[in-house]
Amino acid sequence: MAQEDVFKKLVAHSKEYGFVFQSSEIYDGLGAVYDYGQNGVELKNNIKKYWWDSMVLLHENVVGLDSAIFMHPTVWKASGHVDAFNDPLIDNKDSKKRYRADVLIEDLMAKYDGKMDKEVEKAAKKFGDSFDEKMFRETNPRIQENQKKKEEIHARFVKALNDNDLTELRQIIVDYEVVCPISGTKNWTDVRQFNLMFSTEMGSTADGALKIFLRPETAQGIFVNFLNVQKTGRMKLPFGIAQIGKAFRNEIVARQFIFRMREFEQMEMQFFVPPGEELAWFEKWKAARMKWHKSLGMGDHKYRFHDHDKLAHYANAATDIEYEMPFGFKEVEGIHSRTDFDLTQHQEFSGKKITYFDPERNESYVPYVIETSIGVDRMFLSIMAGAYCEEEVEGKDGKKESRVVMKLPPVLAPVKLAVLPLMKKDGLPDMARAIMDDLKYHFNCQYDEKDSIGKRYRRHDAIGTPFCITIDHDSAADQTVTIRYRDTMKQERVKIADLKHLIGDQVSMTELFKSLK
Amino acid sequence: MAQEDVFKKLVAHSKEYGFVFQSSEIYDGLGAVYDYGQNGVELKNNIKKYWWDSMVLLHENVVGLDSAIFMHPTVWKASGHVDAFNDPLIDNKDSKKRYRADVLIEDLMAKYDGKMDKEVEKAAKKFGDSFDEKMFRETNPRIQENQKKKEEIHARFVKALNDNDLTELRQIIVDYEVVCPISGTKNWTDVRQFNLMFSTEMGSTADGALKIFLRPETAQGIFVNFLNVQKTGRMKLPFGIAQIGKAFRNEIVARQFIFRMREFEQMEMQFFVPPGEELAWFEKWKAARMKWHKSLGMGDHKYRFHDHDKLAHYANAATDIEYEMPFGFKEVEGIHSRTDFDLTQHQEFSGKKITYFDPERNESYVPYVIETSIGVDRMFLSIMAGAYCEEEVEGKDGKKESRVVMKLPPVLAPVKLAVLPLMKKDGLPDMARAIMDDLKYHFNCQYDEKDSIGKRYRRHDAIGTPFCITIDHDSAADQTVTIRYRDTMKQERVKIADLKHLIGDQVSMTELFKSLK
Repeated sequence: MAQEDVFKKLVAHSKEYGFVFQSSEIYDGLGAVYDYGQNGVELKNNIKKYWWDSMVLLHENVVGLDSAIFMHPTVWKASGHVDAFNDPLIDNKDSKKRYRADVLIEDLMAKYDGKMDKEVEKAAKKFGDSFDEKMFRETNPRIQENQKKKEEIHARFVKALNDNDLTELRQIIVDYEVVCPISGTKNWTDVRQFNLMFSTEMGSTADGALKIFLRPETAQGIFVNFLNVQKTGRMKLPFGIAQIGKAFRNEIVARQFIFRMREFEQMEMQFFVPPGEELAWFEKWKAARMKWHKSLGMGDHKYRFHDHDKLAHYANAATDIEYEMPFGFKEVEGIHSRTDFDLTQHQEFSGKKITYFDPERNESYVPYVIETSIGVDRMFLSIMAGAYCEEEVEGKDGKKESRVVMKLPPVLAPVKLAVLPLMKKDGLPDMARAIMDDLKYHFNCQYDEKDSIGKRYRRHDAIGTPFCITIDHDSAADQTVTIRYRDTMKQERVKIADLKHLIGDQVSMTELFKSLK
Repeated sequence: MAQEDVFKKLVAHSKEYGFVFQSSEIYDGLGAVYDYGQNGVELKNNIKKYWWDSMVLLHENVVGLDSAIFMHPTVWKASGHVDAFNDPLIDNKDSKKRYRADVLIEDLMAKYDGKMDKEVEKAAKKFGDSFDEKMFRETNPRIQENQKKKEEIHARFVKALNDNDLTELRQIIVDYEVVCPISGTKNWTDVRQFNLMFSTEMGSTADGALKIFLRPETAQGIFVNFLNVQKTGRMKLPFGIAQIGKAFRNEIVARQFIFRMREFEQMEMQFFVPPGEELAWFEKWKAARMKWHKSLGMGDHKYRFHDHDKLAHYANAATDIEYEMPFGFKEVEGIHSRTDFDLTQHQEFSGKKITYFDPERNESYVPYVIETSIGVDRMFLSIMAGAYCEEEVEGKDGKKESRVVMKLPPVLAPVKLAVLPLMKKDGLPDMARAIMDDLKYHFNCQYDEKDSIGKRYRRHDAIGTPFCITIDHDSAADQTVTIRYRDTMKQERVKIADLKHLIGDQVSMTELFKSLK
């Protein structure tokens, strides 16, 4: 199946089985905003808990924080977001449509790639096995011409971005005759910077209200609380502060389902270290974070690092952990060595000293920072994408049938156990409910008595329930039930008294935590 | 100690021990917005988990949801918030200060109460034991006069609110010569309605952006998803949808620490029932919610119901669960029978049918709704207030000393266990860390080796850690440690191997859940 189709099916499946709904759907939706349904919220909460506990419970020197979305506006002046958190926008005067100028230019370059690929494809067909693509690309004049043009554009584009030269960005669009996909015309406005922060007004005084921003990242809430946490928690360097919370970016081109949303959630940990030790810690956290992702068992080959060549102004090292989504390898976590940039900026803008006295070095300094930052929604998407399987299985009477099964890691699955009475009579429902009444205190159970057992298995495959038990006419006599495993579909008879530990051990995070050591 | 002083001390303690910090404190703060510190976030997360699991795990017919803060603007038209979620504001022209007109009038009425109380106090002092307050109030001409005036104001005030008559609100302020506390003048502007919703602009098109609101309550996210959850979760009435999330209100007069914040968190459950059954369910949830609060063991006498006489336009029954805060009994949870108001409104404004087919009644209808709604921050404050104790205890050498101890329910305490090596040598720290390495997978442990054991106990009293263990020179030989209980300060010798269950059982929510049955 093409990866594009997989993605479409995944989006449909997410809706159909209560994982993700379009926000305000009955009002025809709100762009790039999504709600998590009854199964989605459990999966998301489990992801957050696995991260939080692995940070805060397992590390003696990592503590939590929950800072507000609203912050003093000067925070965003200090962080650089007021001045530099922008997208360059351009309007087509005829269609009145607005575009990101950089995206138009990227699409333009992709067009040249497309042209070249087409030439290659044509020739490959013609020459068959003897075709040498590399040589062809290097010698074909049409390809050479296109390649040259693309390189020209690329050079001008990179320079314009580096110089923050909006006039030149527009000039590229004009020179290469980019047309609006709607109107088909080249009638463009100037390029203007558009800040991605949402703003609102707080309070109301006769003199007016205070313009504040919805935070575009959770990190700054940690930085401005560095001294509060360090002092009241008597923390010694190196130590980290972990936080989970919402952030907001007014993306102009928001797409790919929950991959890029206007309202999203982050799990960030800022780790404060003495100057000079940051790169060693960067490497340690890089390895630790990769281990954490892989511990979920979604397939080691699906993860890779993408080290940044071009670093943000505040960083001296940066890498992404990427996961292979249906639309390619994409960032799910960023690990950045942010130097002392943020704390120094806040020191300057607040006029308050933000230093740490190091008893070993016997000196005060502004700590350096290693950041690990996950987009919860992206990670959610990566887990859903990795878990989604369509399989041919043997159905009733040996006939082949297909099933959709979400092979979610049991610790993350929304429902851990489905409790199914074989029939709605002979006291089986009562017995099923009694089992559930005992187990429900320990993990999420769902009772289901409707339809055939086969149909009920399929429903639980579709939401990723790792275990189903069936209560039948023998259950009362020998105090056993049939347990059925989601991935293998194997069934076996187990004692009711053993269920708590049998399932509990496999859905508990403890074993995974131990593997992180 | 006066309750006012208790409250001040609690606020200071919350800051000093990493529970609650003023938002953006290094920038001199942001009004009525707070951050939760390293201990606060754990306490808050534990409160949320206790609520969530008791709703979603324990009730077969309650499922979760996590809808976004951003919603389509028509949602707030339908819910009535765009038109009616207002405060009446008035400015003093001389001081340029802005006030809530209703608060000015309430303060005015309180002044008459104050005058009357003073008369009573004076007379009581004079007459001593023989003083009959009731008779005095009924016969004293000065009291009678003040009482009459207060009743006049009250009658006009209630009528003005009911009629939404802003001119009359202003007239009351003018007629009773209310002066601005800053300028001391009676130079007032007109009263205008001020909507409490924060607004922002989403997207950017050449035609402009979409004006949206930050949700002022989480409830509407549940209502607009009713059909999504009901259908994809195959839910049958009666069933509930539970949600935890942030909400925002641009309060003009925000005060009392985290009791009334501009950014706050709600835990709401909307329970959908067939029409006609709502009042029976209202009573059931009323009892269940009170039981839940009391299960935390903060003292049954600290909770009471406050049934509403005046109902909101959408309700046919409503009550608050109040907790005795240092500043009086205050609402921590509201339970409302919201009828079919919200779903009907969304049906009307969205043009989509929002009905449920009831197989037993064999008919379709718009369900009725019982809402249970907790302010997480208020509940946090109630737990902190209830837990805060100053005690005289026997210190070193039998001398009296005082301790501040947070008698938090063990299930909610941020840190469950402090692991304390008696000395920083003789292998005691290694042994302590080995114990911690085993227990940290199961609950939040904190290692602490600095200062005397007594000082370490006090630090953990101050953050509410229910258990401390000390590793001493006998520990290696007999594999035991001294456990010290926070509230009784009793100490006893226990086997290291027993710690996991001894502490685990007392900090686990399971036993409390069972008590809710």
